[in-house]
Amino acid sequence: MIEHQKALKAVNTYLSCLVNSDYQMIVSLYSSDATVEDPVGSDILRGSDAIKEFYEHAVTAVTEARLTGDIRVSGDEVAFPFEITADLGSGSIKIQIIDIFRFDGEGKVDSMRAFWGQSNIQK
Amino acid sequence: MIEHQKALKAVNTYLSCLVNSDYQMIVSLYSSDATVEDPVGSDILRGSDAIKEFYEHAVTAVTEARLTGDIRVSGDEVAFPFEITADLGSGSIKIQIIDIFRFDGEGKVDSMRAFWGQSNIQK
Repeated sequence: MIEHQKALKAVNTYLSCLVNSDYQMIVSLYSSDATVEDPVGSDILRGSDAIKEFYEHAVTAVTEARLTGDIRVSGDEVAFPFEITADLGSGSIKIQIIDIFRFDGEGKVDSMRAFWGQSNIQK
Repeated sequence: MIEHQKALKAVNTYLSCLVNSDYQMIVSLYSSDATVEDPVGSDILRGSDAIKEFYEHAVTAVTEARLTGDIRVSGDEVAFPFEITADLGSGSIKIQIIDIFRFDGEGKVDSMRAFWGQSNIQK
């Protein structure tokens, strides 16, 4: 069981790091052999190097990130609904996302799955 | 890939059946060997009989169920945030939940995971 406060702290750190482009802090939230599936249905990334490379690119466009509802802490996992604003140069978009973090015994995220699709992108 | 409209229809059917206590319709959304984990971290139920027994009890207290944000369709899955109101006799409560449905090739739900914890219950 992950404690509510620890899960909330990880979620808030994650969202602020997306905005601040602090991808190294994001990598430190994950265990060394963690998996990232973003979006769900795409190839699953595994391990710190792959995760670092992913976020190094992913964070560059994010200008805002905010929770849009309660975090749901359940067992070793947390699900949370959020919205990011991304500046693509040609204009900004908003994306509605739900992420799932699963925590290991050390409180590191060992699995992340991001749920979003075309219908969640607003121009 | 599940189509957005099919996923949305399943979600809306599910929520209306919770309110209408139509547990048999809920069972029909699932494949015969589907799994249900509600809440995440509890024992996983498998198969129509176990799922029917679970919902036969679960639906009795639900008086309202509504989406609180976009459904997120991603690969073969959909994540959706919702709120239920339940009448426990001694008063009503609201619970903020995020469910994940995974669909098989026939469009049936073959896995459901429900994320909610103590902090999501409002009296």
